[in-house]
Amino acid sequence: MFTGLSAFPLTPLDDDRLDERALANLVGRLAGAGVDSIGALGSTGSYAYLTRSERARVAALAVENAGGVPVIVGIGALRTRHVLEHADDAQRAGAGAVLLAPVSYQPLTDDEVYHLYEQVTANLSVPLVVYDNPRTTGFTFTDELYAAVARLAHVASVKVPPLPADPAIARDRVTALRALLPSHVGIGVSGDQVAAVSLRAGCDAWYSVIAGILPELALPIVRAGSPAAARAASDRLRPLFELFAAHGSLRVVAAVAEHRGLVGAGCLPSPLRPLDAAGHAAVVQALAIVEATPPGRG
Amino acid sequence: MFTGLSAFPLTPLDDDRLDERALANLVGRLAGAGVDSIGALGSTGSYAYLTRSERARVAALAVENAGGVPVIVGIGALRTRHVLEHADDAQRAGAGAVLLAPVSYQPLTDDEVYHLYEQVTANLSVPLVVYDNPRTTGFTFTDELYAAVARLAHVASVKVPPLPADPAIARDRVTALRALLPSHVGIGVSGDQVAAVSLRAGCDAWYSVIAGILPELALPIVRAGSPAAARAASDRLRPLFELFAAHGSLRVVAAVAEHRGLVGAGCLPSPLRPLDAAGHAAVVQALAIVEATPPGRG
Repeated sequence: MFTGLSAFPLTPLDDDRLDERALANLVGRLAGAGVDSIGALGSTGSYAYLTRSERARVAALAVENAGGVPVIVGIGALRTRHVLEHADDAQRAGAGAVLLAPVSYQPLTDDEVYHLYEQVTANLSVPLVVYDNPRTTGFTFTDELYAAVARLAHVASVKVPPLPADPAIARDRVTALRALLPSHVGIGVSGDQVAAVSLRAGCDAWYSVIAGILPELALPIVRAGSPAAARAASDRLRPLFELFAAHGSLRVVAAVAEHRGLVGAGCLPSPLRPLDAAGHAAVVQALAIVEATPPGRG
Repeated sequence: MFTGLSAFPLTPLDDDRLDERALANLVGRLAGAGVDSIGALGSTGSYAYLTRSERARVAALAVENAGGVPVIVGIGALRTRHVLEHADDAQRAGAGAVLLAPVSYQPLTDDEVYHLYEQVTANLSVPLVVYDNPRTTGFTFTDELYAAVARLAHVASVKVPPLPADPAIARDRVTALRALLPSHVGIGVSGDQVAAVSLRAGCDAWYSVIAGILPELALPIVRAGSPAAARAASDRLRPLFELFAAHGSLRVVAAVAEHRGLVGAGCLPSPLRPLDAAGHAAVVQALAIVEATPPGRG
C-alpha cells in the first residue's frame, strides 16, 4: 500500500454540499486505471474544510468505490480529540491506512507534534502515514522528529515535502532519510513535478495530486521501464506543473475535473474559488498541449 | 468599542471540555478591572480548536459575565459556511461585534479573502473587526486588500500585526494605514510588547493577550497620563514579554492563569501542551519580578 502510485482525488462539492455521485465516479476511475492506492481526504480532498459527518461519508464512499484498491484516509484536524474521532470513522469505513499531518493554528512545538502522533497511534489498528506538508500546516519537521515519530507503532510511511530537483541531491536526501527511519517505514514523496526524480532517488511511493484526476498520465512515470522514460513521462506534464506553481495544484486539478465534466463548477469549499476565466483557459490549453504530446516525447 | 483596551481571555478547558466556571470568572474579572471591551474566542481564546456548540456557549457565557462591557466574538473558520454559522451564533449570543481572520489551510488568494469578507459582512448586523494575524493564519494582507476590505459595510476596525518598535517608523506606518482606510475604520494593534509604542503612534485600540489575564498590569499602559508613563508601564512587563517570544503568548498566559489558580492544569486544547516544569517556573519567576517592580519603574 505504501509503494508505487497513490492517487489523491478531489472531494467535489456541489453548492457547498458533498457531491456523492461525482466522488464515487472519481474514485472508481482511479481504481479502473490501476493505481496502487487511493488517498481520500488528502489536501487535494479538502479534508481540513469538511465536517466530521462529511468526512465519514467520503471515507465510506471511497472504500465502496475503490474496487479493492487500498484507501488511505486523511484524519488531520487542529484538535487531537477531532483527529481521534476521524481515525475511528476512517477505520469503521474500512480504510487501509490513515494519513496525518500536524495541522496548526498556534505554531506547534516538536514535543506537541510528537505527543499528537503518540496519542493517535496508540489508538489505531491500521497503519499510519506521517504527512509533512509545511505549506499547508505551517509546521516543519526536523530530522530528529521524523526519526522519533517513525519509531511509533503503526507508522508505515512518511510523506515528505518535494525533494530537490537535482538527482544527486535528491538521492543524498533519500539516503539520509533511510538512515533516520526504521527499515520497515517507507518514504513517499509529494510534489508531482519532482516525482520522477524522487522515485529514481529511491522513494517508495508517490503521493500524487495529478494522479487523482489524470491517472493515465501519471502511471507512466511510475511504471516506466527506464529512468529516461520516466523523465520523459514527467516532462510531458510540465505545462500543467507550471500552472500548479502559479495557482496551487488544487485549483488546477479542480479546473481539469470541471473541463472533463467530472465535477460541477465551484466544486471547492468556499472561500476557495475556482480559477478565473483566464486561469481556466490556461488549464484547458495546457491539457491540450499535454495530450497532443506523444507519450515519451515530453 | 474599538478604542482603548480590548482584553482577550483564554477559553479554559478541563479534561478537554469547556470549563464554564473558569471562563465566567475570567470574563467577570476583566469587566471588574474596567477594560474597554472583551475579545472572546480570539486566538488566545482558542477559537480555531473549538466546535460550533462550544463556541456558541463561550459567546453566551462571555456576554452574560461581561457586566455590560461590549464583547467582540471571533468567528473565523477554514470554511465560509462555518464562518457564517459562527457569525449567526455570536449575534444571537449578544456579541457587540465580531472578529474575523482569514484562517487558511490551502494558501488563500487576495481575491478569495476579499470575497470571504464580502460574503460575511453582507450577512451581518453588528460591526466586524478585520483580524490580520499572519503567524497563525499563514495569510498576509497587502495594503490594497486592507483598503478594499475596509470599505465593506460593517467593517469597523482592522487589527494589524505588531508595528515596528521604533516610534518614528510605527508612526509612519499608522499614517500610511490612515490614508488607506475610510475615516470611520479604527486601527487596533496586537503584539503586547509594542502596545505602548503603537498607541502613542496613533492606534485606536490595543487587542491584548496579557490584558486577558492580567488586566491590572495592562491598563496602566492605556490609561497612562504621559508617553513616558506608558513606556514605563510597558517596560515593567518585559520579563513576561520575553517569555511570550520564547514560548508563544498563549502558553505563557495559560501558565499565569494556572499559577493564579484561575484555571486548572492543561487548560489548552490538545495537541497544545502546557509549558514544561522549567518553562512554568520561568513564568512564575517573571511574574514575581514584574509584581516586585514598582509601577512606573519598568
